[in-house]
Amino acid sequence: MTDARRTSSGQKVPKNGDGLLIGALTDYGLGPYVALLHSAARYPFSPRATWLDIDHGIALGDVQAGALTLRRTVPSLPPCVVVAVVDPGVGTDRRAVALKTATGHQLVGPDNGLLEPAARRLGGATELVDIRSSPLRVVDRSLTFDGRDLFGPVAGALCGGWALEHVGTPIDPASLMALALPAPRATASGLEAAVLEVDHFGTLVLALDDQLAALGPLPPLGTTGRIAAGDGGRDLALGRTFADVPSGELVLYRDSDGALALARRDGSAAQLLGLQVGAPVSIEFAAGDQTPGSRAA
Amino acid sequence: MTDARRTSSGQKVPKNGDGLLIGALTDYGLGPYVALLHSAARYPFSPRATWLDIDHGIALGDVQAGALTLRRTVPSLPPCVVVAVVDPGVGTDRRAVALKTATGHQLVGPDNGLLEPAARRLGGATELVDIRSSPLRVVDRSLTFDGRDLFGPVAGALCGGWALEHVGTPIDPASLMALALPAPRATASGLEAAVLEVDHFGTLVLALDDQLAALGPLPPLGTTGRIAAGDGGRDLALGRTFADVPSGELVLYRDSDGALALARRDGSAAQLLGLQVGAPVSIEFAAGDQTPGSRAA
Amino acid sequence: MTDARRTSSGQKVPKNGDGLLIGALTDYGLGPYVALLHSAARYPFSPRATWLDIDHGIALGDVQAGALTLRRTVPSLPPCVVVAVVDPGVGTDRRAVALKTATGHQLVGPDNGLLEPAARRLGGATELVDIRSSPLRVVDRSLTFDGRDLFGPVAGALCGGWALEHVGTPIDPASLMALALPAPRATASGLEAAVLEVDHFGTLVLALDDQLAALGPLPPLGTTGRIAAGDGGRDLALGRTFADVPSGELVLYRDSDGALALARRDGSAAQLLGLQVGAPVSIEFAAGDQTPGSRAA
Repeated sequence: MTDARRTSSGQKVPKNGDGLLIGALTDYGLGPYVALLHSAARYPFSPRATWLDIDHGIALGDVQAGALTLRRTVPSLPPCVVVAVVDPGVGTDRRAVALKTATGHQLVGPDNGLLEPAARRLGGATELVDIRSSPLRVVDRSLTFDGRDLFGPVAGALCGGWALEHVGTPIDPASLMALALPAPRATASGLEAAVLEVDHFGTLVLALDDQLAALGPLPPLGTTGRIAAGDGGRDLALGRTFADVPSGELVLYRDSDGALALARRDGSAAQLLGLQVGAPVSIEFAAGDQTPGSRAA
Repeated sequence: MTDARRTSSGQKVPKNGDGLLIGALTDYGLGPYVALLHSAARYPFSPRATWLDIDHGIALGDVQAGALTLRRTVPSLPPCVVVAVVDPGVGTDRRAVALKTATGHQLVGPDNGLLEPAARRLGGATELVDIRSSPLRVVDRSLTFDGRDLFGPVAGALCGGWALEHVGTPIDPASLMALALPAPRATASGLEAAVLEVDHFGTLVLALDDQLAALGPLPPLGTTGRIAAGDGGRDLALGRTFADVPSGELVLYRDSDGALALARRDGSAAQLLGLQVGAPVSIEFAAGDQTPGSRAA
Repeated sequence: MTDARRTSSGQKVPKNGDGLLIGALTDYGLGPYVALLHSAARYPFSPRATWLDIDHGIALGDVQAGALTLRRTVPSLPPCVVVAVVDPGVGTDRRAVALKTATGHQLVGPDNGLLEPAARRLGGATELVDIRSSPLRVVDRSLTFDGRDLFGPVAGALCGGWALEHVGTPIDPASLMALALPAPRATASGLEAAVLEVDHFGTLVLALDDQLAALGPLPPLGTTGRIAAGDGGRDLALGRTFADVPSGELVLYRDSDGALALARRDGSAAQLLGLQVGAPVSIEFAAGDQTPGSRAA
């Protein structure tokens, strides 16, 4: 427990990854693939690491959903290793990478846009390595399960104290593939956006925190409005939380991640409006009908 | 590993929560919110705690389901911290609490009936604190994710050795909100009840162990009967286990938690009878047709 | 951390199971039964063990699915304890067992075929004990939850250093119940098989690695063919990975476990073909139309 070594950045790393954290996000669902990834990451380098399942319910191959969930969660973790696998290109020549961010987080996964939004939010990638020919790759086994045979072992080694340059070949951090996201825009009296995420509660994310500047200042809390999506549209109000509107009504608010989101109190906005990820949304704000500082309801 | 301090009750607490247990129950489903709760509970106070996911598949906002699952599981855990979040009132002024039971378990969650059945089963709440203004609350961040911003940090601090009176304001333990549950009742030749829970196997819970006294003594094992629910009713038999009836038949028995339950051998009673939580159930026992001590089948 | 004892086989076991691994596979789904099994395994014997959820989404009572998932995953784990519960016979007089394999893995569960394929792959059972009357069984509690009351405590004790002969009564290792699996067979110009598994990605397993010898040598990579299942059949090609066929096409390949499997690139073979576990499959290979060593596409 007291034996420690140092990574290339001088950070002390407890032996065997004791107390260190490995987070994992995949589209593997409930089956055994998560356990195989977990085992491959833990052994032999970090048997005492703490394992944290971030989300394995990402829709099959949905890189955007995985990327936005990583972006939402990894900043809440202490500096740690995160392995992410939403990888429709497994078995092709797509690049596989590991990186370190300005905050000291280390991310491992395919280079298909999955890692970039989280890395950017953590100050950007300061080191990036191509791990396709990593010495940690299990060879002569399979071409179709890089979670077990490549990403897991690399994550485990990083957690166990290996330096980034020992798990892959250094490349330009600026070459990390970016994720293309639809951008919201301000209109004369409202905004237009595409649904970026729908969560378990049916809340719709319309604009990430770092996309809000493009919308300009929002009307004051209490402002009412109307969403044109669906058949005929629905009323909404700008609020801070669900309790700012009556039960069953829509509230446009900053969600727990700082994003602009649309929720239905005591219900699902996605179900009410019949909207899924990618659907266009148009919102018009009513002018001057709010009482600033009061509750919208 | 050997450094320890003491809580207000004199209990020795290992440093960093090492070896201590945090259990968690929510209606967060498979997405990333569980990971955010987990991380918030673990860091900074209890990085070495053991984490145990009790159930995150509670139906959205179903306080009764969450409360009964807590009641069923927490007594099987050693004295530990359990954080529970089924909280349709998040963002309103509903009370948030932490409590200690007579058995030394500590429960954290909204004060909406979720915690009370488990607490009562564990000898009742001996200490109760209001944590709405807890020094552990993360402020200026969000009003809609108390799992991450309030309940998680409080649970982590308790696991890390904080005393209950340091995470909130002491209030009368008797003020903990109780859960109102439908009560079963004996009839002239049987019983009437409402379905309290339906489990993964389709087994219907009709009366909790502490509600059984209200039904009086049940007929002896082997007694047959008929359930009137659904179209026309179905035969059943009183047994101790599934093997006491033929495959496909219904058995009324004391389940693994001591509750009176109705199961279908090699199938789902809920599906066979078309019954969900809350559905009324009426059972008539046949008189004198059993052979005491023999198998019902 | 430094205190250790030895098992009957002389293996050093850390105190309290520290650092040791308990894997778990069940058909318990998302509800609280997994937590109750977990807690029963961890306490009192192995509070510091690492817990790894292998798969709890096995279809209710589907012993074959559980057995094949165990067989696929346990060999990737270091020598450890695995508790497996897919047990439609709970509450009957079916045998319950614990065993040690030639590799040092210890498996605990019902003796209904669930454990045998994994044990055989790990060199076979070298020790087998009947645990129905184990001193670790919780008695006078329930007849319907052996995960909590028998299998969990036995697994925890084994992880905590108990010798196998102390948790049950030694019996002939050859008496472990085998799982009957459909066998693939070679035809004049192809093969016939039954679908053994369908995974989360819709990939169909047709023949396990140790069933491949019965098929004789397969045609070279790049060979095309046709699967007769479904309405009219579909083209396929023999490849090493998904990228060997165009998007949407079928590839017959050795999967990550060495089994012969049929996948659809960027899609679900199961959905495309309308096939489920148990469905018969007939494949004809085209003669001489491949270019050896080239990509099929």
